[in-house]
Amino acid sequence: MKPKLRAGILGATGAVGQKFIELLANHPWIEITAVAASQRSAGKKYGDVTNWLSGTPIPLSIANLEVQDCIPNLDCDFVFSGLDASVAGEIETSFAQAGYPVISNSRNHRFSPNVPLLIPEVNPDHLSLMKEQKFGKGFIVTNPNCSTTGLVIALKPLHDQWGLEQVNVVTMQALSGAGYPGVASLDILDNVIPYIGSEEQKMESETVKILGKIENKAFKNASIKISAQCNRVAVMNGHLECVNIKLKTKAKLDAIIQVWQNYQAEPQQLKLPSAPNPLIYYFTNEKYPQPRLHRDLGNGMAVSIGRLRECPLFDYKFVVLSHNTVRGAAGGAILNAEILIAKGLLTTR
Amino acid sequence: MKPKLRAGILGATGAVGQKFIELLANHPWIEITAVAASQRSAGKKYGDVTNWLSGTPIPLSIANLEVQDCIPNLDCDFVFSGLDASVAGEIETSFAQAGYPVISNSRNHRFSPNVPLLIPEVNPDHLSLMKEQKFGKGFIVTNPNCSTTGLVIALKPLHDQWGLEQVNVVTMQALSGAGYPGVASLDILDNVIPYIGSEEQKMESETVKILGKIENKAFKNASIKISAQCNRVAVMNGHLECVNIKLKTKAKLDAIIQVWQNYQAEPQQLKLPSAPNPLIYYFTNEKYPQPRLHRDLGNGMAVSIGRLRECPLFDYKFVVLSHNTVRGAAGGAILNAEILIAKGLLTTR
Amino acid sequence: MKPKLRAGILGATGAVGQKFIELLANHPWIEITAVAASQRSAGKKYGDVTNWLSGTPIPLSIANLEVQDCIPNLDCDFVFSGLDASVAGEIETSFAQAGYPVISNSRNHRFSPNVPLLIPEVNPDHLSLMKEQKFGKGFIVTNPNCSTTGLVIALKPLHDQWGLEQVNVVTMQALSGAGYPGVASLDILDNVIPYIGSEEQKMESETVKILGKIENKAFKNASIKISAQCNRVAVMNGHLECVNIKLKTKAKLDAIIQVWQNYQAEPQQLKLPSAPNPLIYYFTNEKYPQPRLHRDLGNGMAVSIGRLRECPLFDYKFVVLSHNTVRGAAGGAILNAEILIAKGLLTTR
Amino acid sequence: MKPKLRAGILGATGAVGQKFIELLANHPWIEITAVAASQRSAGKKYGDVTNWLSGTPIPLSIANLEVQDCIPNLDCDFVFSGLDASVAGEIETSFAQAGYPVISNSRNHRFSPNVPLLIPEVNPDHLSLMKEQKFGKGFIVTNPNCSTTGLVIALKPLHDQWGLEQVNVVTMQALSGAGYPGVASLDILDNVIPYIGSEEQKMESETVKILGKIENKAFKNASIKISAQCNRVAVMNGHLECVNIKLKTKAKLDAIIQVWQNYQAEPQQLKLPSAPNPLIYYFTNEKYPQPRLHRDLGNGMAVSIGRLRECPLFDYKFVVLSHNTVRGAAGGAILNAEILIAKGLLTTR
Repeated sequence: MKPKLRAGILGATGAVGQKFIELLANHPWIEITAVAASQRSAGKKYGDVTNWLSGTPIPLSIANLEVQDCIPNLDCDFVFSGLDASVAGEIETSFAQAGYPVISNSRNHRFSPNVPLLIPEVNPDHLSLMKEQKFGKGFIVTNPNCSTTGLVIALKPLHDQWGLEQVNVVTMQALSGAGYPGVASLDILDNVIPYIGSEEQKMESETVKILGKIENKAFKNASIKISAQCNRVAVMNGHLECVNIKLKTKAKLDAIIQVWQNYQAEPQQLKLPSAPNPLIYYFTNEKYPQPRLHRDLGNGMAVSIGRLRECPLFDYKFVVLSHNTVRGAAGGAILNAEILIAKGLLTTR
Repeated sequence: MKPKLRAGILGATGAVGQKFIELLANHPWIEITAVAASQRSAGKKYGDVTNWLSGTPIPLSIANLEVQDCIPNLDCDFVFSGLDASVAGEIETSFAQAGYPVISNSRNHRFSPNVPLLIPEVNPDHLSLMKEQKFGKGFIVTNPNCSTTGLVIALKPLHDQWGLEQVNVVTMQALSGAGYPGVASLDILDNVIPYIGSEEQKMESETVKILGKIENKAFKNASIKISAQCNRVAVMNGHLECVNIKLKTKAKLDAIIQVWQNYQAEPQQLKLPSAPNPLIYYFTNEKYPQPRLHRDLGNGMAVSIGRLRECPLFDYKFVVLSHNTVRGAAGGAILNAEILIAKGLLTTR
Repeated sequence: MKPKLRAGILGATGAVGQKFIELLANHPWIEITAVAASQRSAGKKYGDVTNWLSGTPIPLSIANLEVQDCIPNLDCDFVFSGLDASVAGEIETSFAQAGYPVISNSRNHRFSPNVPLLIPEVNPDHLSLMKEQKFGKGFIVTNPNCSTTGLVIALKPLHDQWGLEQVNVVTMQALSGAGYPGVASLDILDNVIPYIGSEEQKMESETVKILGKIENKAFKNASIKISAQCNRVAVMNGHLECVNIKLKTKAKLDAIIQVWQNYQAEPQQLKLPSAPNPLIYYFTNEKYPQPRLHRDLGNGMAVSIGRLRECPLFDYKFVVLSHNTVRGAAGGAILNAEILIAKGLLTTR
Repeated sequence: MKPKLRAGILGATGAVGQKFIELLANHPWIEITAVAASQRSAGKKYGDVTNWLSGTPIPLSIANLEVQDCIPNLDCDFVFSGLDASVAGEIETSFAQAGYPVISNSRNHRFSPNVPLLIPEVNPDHLSLMKEQKFGKGFIVTNPNCSTTGLVIALKPLHDQWGLEQVNVVTMQALSGAGYPGVASLDILDNVIPYIGSEEQKMESETVKILGKIENKAFKNASIKISAQCNRVAVMNGHLECVNIKLKTKAKLDAIIQVWQNYQAEPQQLKLPSAPNPLIYYFTNEKYPQPRLHRDLGNGMAVSIGRLRECPLFDYKFVVLSHNTVRGAAGGAILNAEILIAKGLLTTR
């Protein structure tokens, strides 16, 4: 058995940082050796400064770690970043420049040149973009926004098979997507908020990058027209999305379902520790999927789809669900690290 | 001052029937003189057999009424029907045949030949269809499904001005739309249900009928392609809908907003008691409209719109909200009665 | 008709300040002529700096007012204070010293010597304490904490009639009691928080002060033993409380209900504009009162009681409900101003 | 390894029956060999007639079982009963008379003579009552109501050590306690219902039976005065209770906490498969326990306590939480079966 890789967590006291710690407890390949946060917390014990949100206690080994500044002298092989976007850009660059691989959940570098916006089941070939990063031994890999991830996993098998021309999506997103404290209870009880700042643009631009191709060494976005409308609903976890699609070539309804159910990608083939198998659950019960019932399938890493039916305007419409803080954030980043490790791109320093 | 018209309520003990009673308290033109329900309740005092859902008490004059069978010998000038669809068809027909005007909120006769599917601000000309009904002095007028109403009011001014080609709508519908007891709390707390039985078909078929035209004495549905996806969310009242539209002729964003804000129709011009003025509220705050904040505007009869913006797939997208049990059910039916009264089509028997 | 008294609102941009503005729109005796808040907002238009929480728009006359600093040179006859407790103490004192009557909803002066902790239906005689305040023409009157108010109104008629010995109360309090943004949605969806900071002490100490007596010019707390446990639940407005009581002399169950239903106090007799009549609703439906159904009775100023029954430990137990931001905060303070006006204790300066 | 005992589930299609099936999947000592329900379902495949409430699928081996009538010719060693109280009494008696051990979650026989009302950590000695049952080889053992269970587990260590004189409890109970469909969403969103039918009597009478003693072969209820008030809140799972206690002898606060934390009973000592260890979690964070955070501790079988503090009326007050459908229903019944098996009282027929 190989020694575990040693990870540092940037933004360790925040909601995403906590989720990294929760999901990495007992990870077979990775152990946390450093936690870093803002100067306010630095120098103190992690357990003393963190408003721990989960009901299961902080792993003892982490609770006793001293929180460090977010400067690139952490004792670890690489870092996960759950930093707030207001500071993530510079800090992540400084770590990459100092030779640290940075596996980031923040949005700042998602559109930086040569930074893969990675979903291991969708675009592992984008990892080759990394070679052109100018950071020496360090590099940055990002994962997409929580509302993009589930959508793209549902779209990818169809795009491969029939080609996507148009995508329309309306989301009903969970509260945990807004971080903590996030949405005030007075704003959401008995209510829906039909707006999430810059979320629609993220979904529209990220989707075409992730489904993009590297051709003749040049990167090209997918030529899919896409429109998104994003809403916040009173759900704890799990983003539900109503999708319409127009395909380039005709597809039968049954064939689409089959393509979803049979979809296998590198993470499943490599048996990565966090890879769900199956990746996609298709439900025939027309009331499914539902956030509370299905968000935890595959330990929160699977994607649930249902209600595929013909659409009077597009070709088809359907409903997709994925867990926004697991598959759509910390879990997605961990799967990114796992595929890097499996491919030998992430090693002990 | 003219004597009030005397109304009977069919299905008086149900959720819609109760809303009729609540909204008609102190109505200037209409008084309730009869309440009818299933045989189980018949012969008993209304106040004794009704599981009254509102916090404000049953009007005393109604509480003391004896509940009668739903057979056409009620002492009234016309009836409102809040009957369940399982029985509404036959009972409403029997009342019309017996000479009663029937103002129905039920779905059974919405597509019967010559039955207007009426929103007074949208298609008052459809009332002329009634003449061809074969009921003698009786007739049937219906109002559309709660999720259709708000949508069509938002679409009508645009259809008049620029012509609609395509409409895509995704709804987030309130619990009260399912009646009582309706949705189990275990099914909706911390959850969304991406399915409402036959709701999508209703929205698609009702919209083109309501926006249809009578040409050369023949009725023609509007030639609009429309697709709907319907979801149930944990909101008490108020259906919120995300809409995409494609217009036949080009429209500027500001012009659309202006057309909405200036839209006036017969109910406003006739100053019908339940007609909201303005009919449409357009919000510039990008977080609006929201169900809890805006459902009660215009006493629940106004429609709230916001977030009009260009759409990468269609021409525009926006959000619309209306109160499902007031504008979308009992209040809509009452407004139907009011316009009939104002036009002399509904009188004392 | 007398000219209206001119009121300033301290803390006008906060949740309580907004409620003052909402409730004073169209008040027959009082008009708002000044709004004051923190320096951050001072000098700007109220409508531009306020995150207005209600769905009904800001009254236009208020939206255009310039927000002023909280220093005692406001152009008004008296002030309502909805200031945060972190600053209310000093600011309110400075206004009183400058000759302004201060009608405060903040907790800071509730236990200051000679400051009445006033519920007009319960202890209007405590207003005589004010004479000993050392502020010249100015003075301070406070209203109790939102969870205390409903309880004390329920207890007062019983204490008068039979004498209270012991009170045990467990509360289920609404989200709006925590202000805005207040409770994070992630903390309360599908949850209860069994703790509200210092709330239990407030209920225990305020109750005995309000029910206290002035004897031989000396003030004496009521000698009632009281224990409180406070919980936050996912309710928008309306604090529900489960109460046990032990009386000094024996009371029959029916007599207690009658005493509640017949209770009339000075505000009702003086027909103060905000005084509810009846003050107390007693429900025989054993599922009542409920926050959503009954919080708005008497425009949010009435108190609802139900489920009076014998208790194996105490004499009786029952459930009481009152609206926490109306009766328990801004509305309570406005009623305090009204009784002062009616008694000639609050006049134009 | 011994062969597993073969269990039948009475009321298998209901909410409690489903929970039995969910919790018994992969049980080391018990396998399900028969499912029985009402005649409507009998003869059909379990998977076809059950409105399965959980997001994880029905275990395949169960889905394919044919549902049988609730008559005592099931192929199994004993039965779990999750029957509705309207039918449980007679059916359970008929099974016991036919020689089946009946481990029941229903209330019907809880106060039948010689029927243990069993919490294995609290009153395992009550199992000796069974000997006097007149059923031959069959017998009936019951577990208490969901709201009683958590309370009694919190009380037991204190009663052993210092003696309880008085207990006052106010509950905030989860929706799942009402079964399915149970509470209508329209009744509980933005609301609390201060009433649960006959729940208060159950808590008061069950507590003194469970804490009762067998002395000189006679059973004697505990002489504790107890008063309960029960409320329904918008929580999925987990009953939270605010408790006041008066002890016979003086106890120090720290000593009470220690007694809770150290409490070990037979199920822990026997290492029963479903026995949580620790049984009781005591939290020092004054905001804990909370239903959503702590209901699943010990796989839903542990009890969480917090906020122990002195009480002005009683000696102490505190908050207790337990999972109502696991510890308080199906899980509690399974633990009852386990202790019977461990003691040799439940064997293959």
